[in-house]
Amino acid sequence: MAEAIFFNGGARGSWKVTKQSALKGAGLAGVGFVDRDVKVDTTASWTLSGVTSNLRYTNAAEKKLLDATPSVLAKPGATCAALIPITKSAGWWAMAQDERRAVLEDKSRHIAIGSDYLSVVSRQLVHCRDQPGAQFDFLTWFEFRPEDEGRFDELLGKLRATSEWGFIEREVELRLEKAS
Amino acid sequence: MAEAIFFNGGARGSWKVTKQSALKGAGLAGVGFVDRDVKVDTTASWTLSGVTSNLRYTNAAEKKLLDATPSVLAKPGATCAALIPITKSAGWWAMAQDERRAVLEDKSRHIAIGSDYLSVVSRQLVHCRDQPGAQFDFLTWFEFRPEDEGRFDELLGKLRATSEWGFIEREVELRLEKAS
Repeated sequence: MAEAIFFNGGARGSWKVTKQSALKGAGLAGVGFVDRDVKVDTTASWTLSGVTSNLRYTNAAEKKLLDATPSVLAKPGATCAALIPITKSAGWWAMAQDERRAVLEDKSRHIAIGSDYLSVVSRQLVHCRDQPGAQFDFLTWFEFRPEDEGRFDELLGKLRATSEWGFIEREVELRLEKAS
Repeated sequence: MAEAIFFNGGARGSWKVTKQSALKGAGLAGVGFVDRDVKVDTTASWTLSGVTSNLRYTNAAEKKLLDATPSVLAKPGATCAALIPITKSAGWWAMAQDERRAVLEDKSRHIAIGSDYLSVVSRQLVHCRDQPGAQFDFLTWFEFRPEDEGRFDELLGKLRATSEWGFIEREVELRLEKAS
């Protein structure tokens, strides 16, 4: 069963927004806080929700590597986070599975690049394309220690330079710090 | 954007149930009719819903073949239908993408078998595993002419004999005919 996850953006929440940017396409209404929850907060300015799901591109050898360094959220000291909702183009979704895999990994090394940062960046991929009415395809969530922010920026820079990113048609970034 | 599809089972609908069987795992409450709709019918005994989505396993060569014989629903004369909701095991979903593809196509020839019946069986794959609260992983829908029922039975027989079907842990079948 899919685990549903809700990101409620508004005037309160356990993560304080330190920076909010619309990188491509429409942005989201500016908010002071984001709460990562198991339900909708009806008082929020906006709610983005989706589910964790099975792997879509990762092969057995790559999975073995990922399983050896599981991504653990809420690690002590990981007081920085980022919520990056993204949408890929119709052209991306119209491709066959092997064509998407070829762009994602053979050309763009998405899984390999991410693997280099497993020890410093915890992440969770939330799928929402298949949720009726969803605004985005994915809600990507990252947590890291303040001293690793430079490495996280490096990871984003590498991914955004790939040919896969040419298929991103909407991208919003919220940088967050744990509210005290 | 995903297209949401609802199958409402109850006392009324555009498809009359001619046979309802629980092949594996729990069945569904017996109903006289099924309506294939764009919304929930709150008077129905049960509603199964999901979305159409992108291809998950099909490669470019296979897609080319499928695109050459598009599956068209509501063809004149196609007065028989089947709704077969299925759920695969946790073991299936825990496999990496290449491992699932190896079972589905290399071992089971799922795409190739299906392709042999494209001209007589129209089908639609509705995904529901990623819908919070869904009872099944997929709702598979088929339409065919009464004279092609034997070929449809043959298709089901071939698929159910594959090693992929060893991963099916729940399967219900409803045979339907167009209500006059």
